[in-house]
Parts: sequence; C-alpha cells; structure tokens
Amino acid sequence: MSGKIITISRQFGSGGRTIGKKLAAELGIPCYDSEIIAEIAKKSGFDQDYVRENSEYTSETGLFAALSGVDFYGHSNRDEIWITQCRVIRELAEEGPCVIIGRCADYVLKEDHDLLKVFIYSDMESRAKRIVEQYGESDVNPEKRLKDKDKRRAAYYELYTDQKFGDFNNYDLCLNSGTIGLDKCVDIIRQIYQK
Amino acid sequence: MSGKIITISRQFGSGGRTIGKKLAAELGIPCYDSEIIAEIAKKSGFDQDYVRENSEYTSETGLFAALSGVDFYGHSNRDEIWITQCRVIRELAEEGPCVIIGRCADYVLKEDHDLLKVFIYSDMESRAKRIVEQYGESDVNPEKRLKDKDKRRAAYYELYTDQKFGDFNNYDLCLNSGTIGLDKCVDIIRQIYQK
Repeated sequence: MSGKIITISRQFGSGGRTIGKKLAAELGIPCYDSEIIAEIAKKSGFDQDYVRENSEYTSETGLFAALSGVDFYGHSNRDEIWITQCRVIRELAEEGPCVIIGRCADYVLKEDHDLLKVFIYSDMESRAKRIVEQYGESDVNPEKRLKDKDKRRAAYYELYTDQKFGDFNNYDLCLNSGTIGLDKCVDIIRQIYQK
Repeated sequence: MSGKIITISRQFGSGGRTIGKKLAAELGIPCYDSEIIAEIAKKSGFDQDYVRENSEYTSETGLFAALSGVDFYGHSNRDEIWITQCRVIRELAEEGPCVIIGRCADYVLKEDHDLLKVFIYSDMESRAKRIVEQYGESDVNPEKRLKDKDKRRAAYYELYTDQKFGDFNNYDLCLNSGTIGLDKCVDIIRQIYQK
C-alpha cells in the first residue's frame, strides 16, 4: 500500500477521462491513462495502437471473445497484454497516490490497495454529442459506435474479471456525468477522496 | 411540475431511508415514506401492514410473482395496490418539492417531473450489521434476510416497471453508503440538488 488510489471506470463518451485528469490536477497527483498503454507497449513489444485496441476491448463478444487470436496453448495476444497490463498497473500503484483511468484497475488493485472506485456513465444522447465533438464524425453513426464500444468494453471486463461491467457493487460511487456535469463530478470525487 | 423532487431507491439495510429523512430536514422539504403506505391503505381499504409488504416486494420471484393472488381477470391485490400507489405518488409530487423513498417513484414520476434520482447501496456486511441494529435479531440470519429482501424487491420493481432494479442508467447518482458514510451521502445529494 502506498496511499489512496482513485480508479475511474467509465462508459465510452461519458467524459470519465476528462474528469480523471481534472481531478488529478486538482489533487496534485498523477493521472495514468495513455501512459499505461505506452508502458505495456514497451514491456510487451506490441505496437501502441494494437495495445490500445486490445487492452480494453474484445474484438468480438461471446465465444469469439474467448477464442480470438488464441495460440496452441489457448493463450492469445490479448491475454499477453492483460498480464503485462496488470503488472504495469500494480507498479504504478506502488509509486503512490494516483488516478487510474479504466483498464480494469478497480479489479486489478482491489485486494492490495486503498481504493476509491468510481464509475462514470451518461445517457446515449450526451455521449453521442461528446464523441462527435472529441473524435469527429465517421461513416458509422455515433449511437452505433457507442453501442459497439459498450458491448466490447463490457465483454473485455467480464472476460478478465469475475465481475459485471457497471455493476454498482464494484464501486464506491457511480455518477451520471450527463446530468451532474463534469466539473461537479470532479468536485464530488475530490470531496470523498479528501474526507 | 411543481418543483424538483428527489427519489431515493435503495437496497434494504443500506440506510437510504435515514439519508432521505436527513436530506429532507436539511432542505426543509417533506420526506414521504410510511406516509405513502398510510395513504394507500386509506384509499384502497387494505390494511397498512398488508400494503407495506405488497407495495415494494413480491411474495415470490419469477412466475409466482406474476401470478400470486391473481383474480379471474388476471388482476391481483398487488396490482390494485400498485395502481393506488402510482396515484398517491403523483398527488404528493404535485404538492411541491419533496423526497420520496422507494416505491418505484423514480419510474412513476420520470415522464412528468423534474427529478434527482438517487440509488443507495452498500456491501452485505454493513447492511447485515445495520438491520440487526435497526430491526433486531431473528431466527433467520441477517445475510439470508437481506438476500430474500433484495430478490423480492428487485422482482417487484421489474414486474411493474420496464427497468432493472439497481441499473445505473435509471439514476443520476448511485452511492455506496457503507464506504462513503451516511452523512457524506446526504451532503453530496444536497449539493447536487442545490446546484
């Protein structure tokens, strides 16, 4: 244990990453997001884009999720990335208080660290607006993109943890950023962290 | 619409009712809990204890939930209580800002009122401790009592709404009263209400 850690699980497009970054800045502690991807890439030898896509999403859901890219021993690239990811997250947590965005950190650290576990979500409309602002338009409509991301992110979480993504039992608080607002979410989490 | 209403859905033993009452006192608005039961009893003619047991719980889950006490027209006492409960909740909401504890008020009012929808939950251990303090020991161990209440309350909610009990999508915020503490829960909800 090296101090209290905030894990932020979030729905795609809910602004969870923005909340985490603001929160960390206000608390004067590091926020780990893409830094985790860079570190996994360095340690595993996989390309950063490949790690990004395979460290939080399955390519398919259901049986395909479990079987995609599996080698003779039933071990996939995604499994390799998962193992490295767990190691990177544990090492970062050992360095001291921080905010960790996504990547099942709530699950990875739950046995050995003092955690404040947050889940950020929002309604489809707010999220659709946000992803178009953040990532631009694409051929696929925003709602379809979100549904696909939701499904694959949940499948990944459920594949590697024994928990259900978004189940309140796994968190200390769950905030709807669409109705509460991003800044108020930051404010509430900070208050609870400093309690 | 007659002002903002706070609905508090909660797991049995999570302290949701205590949070609601403190919150309403701090905001200087009414809190409706057993008042709803009394009003349903008055309007429907059923006994208050019978209303309490049948206005938030099924007696059984699954098919039995749907069929228990059904008359020739497929209409049960519980259905009768549900209809009266919806009417009572809507009438109370029309009177002005208030806190409403449980009874699917988040669902009943969602189309026509300005709501702040809260879900309060906690871990099994904290809840078990709380129900023994609040309601005393019984022949059945606290954990078994909680599991039974959880199951029947969720079944009731799902029987009369088209929603899943405890699904984050139905709420603005979900708070773990066991880790956050009852007073801090009150404080957070009040802040968001007054935002």
